Amino acid sequence: MAVHVAIVGASAPTEAQAASAEAVGRALGTAGAVVITGGGGGVMAAAARGAAENGARVVAILPGSDRTAANPWSEIVLATGMGELRNGLIVRAADVVIAVGGAYGTLSEIALALSAGTAVIGLDTWAIDGVQMAAGPDDAVARALALAGEG
Amino acid sequence: MAVHVAIVGASAPTEAQAASAEAVGRALGTAGAVVITGGGGGVMAAAARGAAENGARVVAILPGSDRTAANPWSEIVLATGMGELRNGLIVRAADVVIAVGGAYGTLSEIALALSAGTAVIGLDTWAIDGVQMAAGPDDAVARALALAGEG
Amino acid sequence: MAVHVAIVGASAPTEAQAASAEAVGRALGTAGAVVITGGGGGVMAAAARGAAENGARVVAILPGSDRTAANPWSEIVLATGMGELRNGLIVRAADVVIAVGGAYGTLSEIALALSAGTAVIGLDTWAIDGVQMAAGPDDAVARALALAGEG
Amino acid sequence: MAVHVAIVGASAPTEAQAASAEAVGRALGTAGAVVITGGGGGVMAAAARGAAENGARVVAILPGSDRTAANPWSEIVLATGMGELRNGLIVRAADVVIAVGGAYGTLSEIALALSAGTAVIGLDTWAIDGVQMAAGPDDAVARALALAGEG
Repeated sequence: MAVHVAIVGASAPTEAQAASAEAVGRALGTAGAVVITGGGGGVMAAAARGAAENGARVVAILPGSDRTAANPWSEIVLATGMGELRNGLIVRAADVVIAVGGAYGTLSEIALALSAGTAVIGLDTWAIDGVQMAAGPDDAVARALALAGEG
Repeated sequence: MAVHVAIVGASAPTEAQAASAEAVGRALGTAGAVVITGGGGGVMAAAARGAAENGARVVAILPGSDRTAANPWSEIVLATGMGELRNGLIVRAADVVIAVGGAYGTLSEIALALSAGTAVIGLDTWAIDGVQMAAGPDDAVARALALAGEG
Repeated sequence: MAVHVAIVGASAPTEAQAASAEAVGRALGTAGAVVITGGGGGVMAAAARGAAENGARVVAILPGSDRTAANPWSEIVLATGMGELRNGLIVRAADVVIAVGGAYGTLSEIALALSAGTAVIGLDTWAIDGVQMAAGPDDAVARALALAGEG
Repeated sequence: MAVHVAIVGASAPTEAQAASAEAVGRALGTAGAVVITGGGGGVMAAAARGAAENGARVVAILPGSDRTAANPWSEIVLATGMGELRNGLIVRAADVVIAVGGAYGTLSEIALALSAGTAVIGLDTWAIDGVQMAAGPDDAVARALALAGEG
């Protein structure tokens, strides 16, 4: 089974955060990973776009029940209808989580991952004890793949 | 977005049901559909095997939290840790549901689909009012694709 | 811990079904049970009213995220925001389920209960193999309490 | 409807945190609130004990599917079988959240509450921007009731 990596983060990112997310997505595509996001805009869309353009399987796990709400770079779309409870599903689906920026929703994903013992790599995000801060997108992906036993 | 079809059914199927599920999976693979199952054995494994061998994206939505529990034909594996509540997620992820045999778990999926207005095609399964019984695997897939606007 | 009984059923019941649900609620109140419903109208409201008037703890497990949507006889209101996935939570919360009438949503609750090994008592509802049909409200409650070890 | 207050926090608290949680529970009981916890030990058990001894309705929303796992001060026990995804249900059920100590699971509850716009009162817990730190148990309960429109 290919490594499953979740990219979580800001729905209203800075330009630098969006560029980071897209670079993370591209590198994960090159690595043959399955890329999981929440299917929305901002970091989610940038990561999905980068990943899809580099051949990754891109999975969107949406909060609502309307599958057409996913960003257009998502190939497999799961409409959960669970609202932010779906944050926990994103985390559970991943071998490792990469967080880029983000607000309280992202913080909940970081916390749920760390609580479950799933590694979290951070880029300009919540400085919670346990998050492994990366120097940039390539470093984040290298760490993620190494943690998942694929680096 | 490719059509998403869920195949649900017996974990302990008859030989005929397993053969039907595999044939359904193969036909969906040929059609380029995304195939969603519960990731377990029986009808789920047969459908996943047929679909994977014909090039479909195969998604497993597992009841447990251990991703390695999925059958080996599942490319994308989501471990929900929600037990049978994940039945509702399978249904919500699908444009149309095909049910093959099955016990009470399958009945819950049929009921949740019909309650949400999602069409259910049946093969040797619960004769619930609203289930559209098919003459065989090819007929089931043809009906499913037509209902999803792809036939 | 008091016996927890879920009453599920039609949101648009017949008069006879609504009267049955209210009588079931009253009898459960007399027995000191915790009564769980989906918090909506029809059978849910009738059962909650009967139970509340006879002193039962009445719990509503709502599909939406707005707690004020519960019927007024619900003392404890849990807004799940999970839509019909909450049907599974209602079933899991109960020692035994009583079904009165109902459409596909009720059928999903019956199926999830039977799948989990939770007994289902039926009054004018889906004639699914495994549902124990009762002669009337008093018989339904007597059977439910007996099955829960309290009769 | 009575105010619903969730008390979340450490499963392995310090003595001071356990005493705080119990005092919070007692004050909420006096106020006639519905008290919601995760049903486990530590802060959850201390809060439930204090609340139950002062006449509160005490609700446990458990991660597992075994209702007998709840602490003995829980009158109404909902076994969700959803693991830590149930953290989101605790938050959604509450008008306001009081957090006492805690690790990553508590952090996820704080984050989900703030994300949903639900106020969080803190006692010796994660210093996340948005958490309103209280001077002690009585202050925490006074603030919680005021925020819920009951103070």
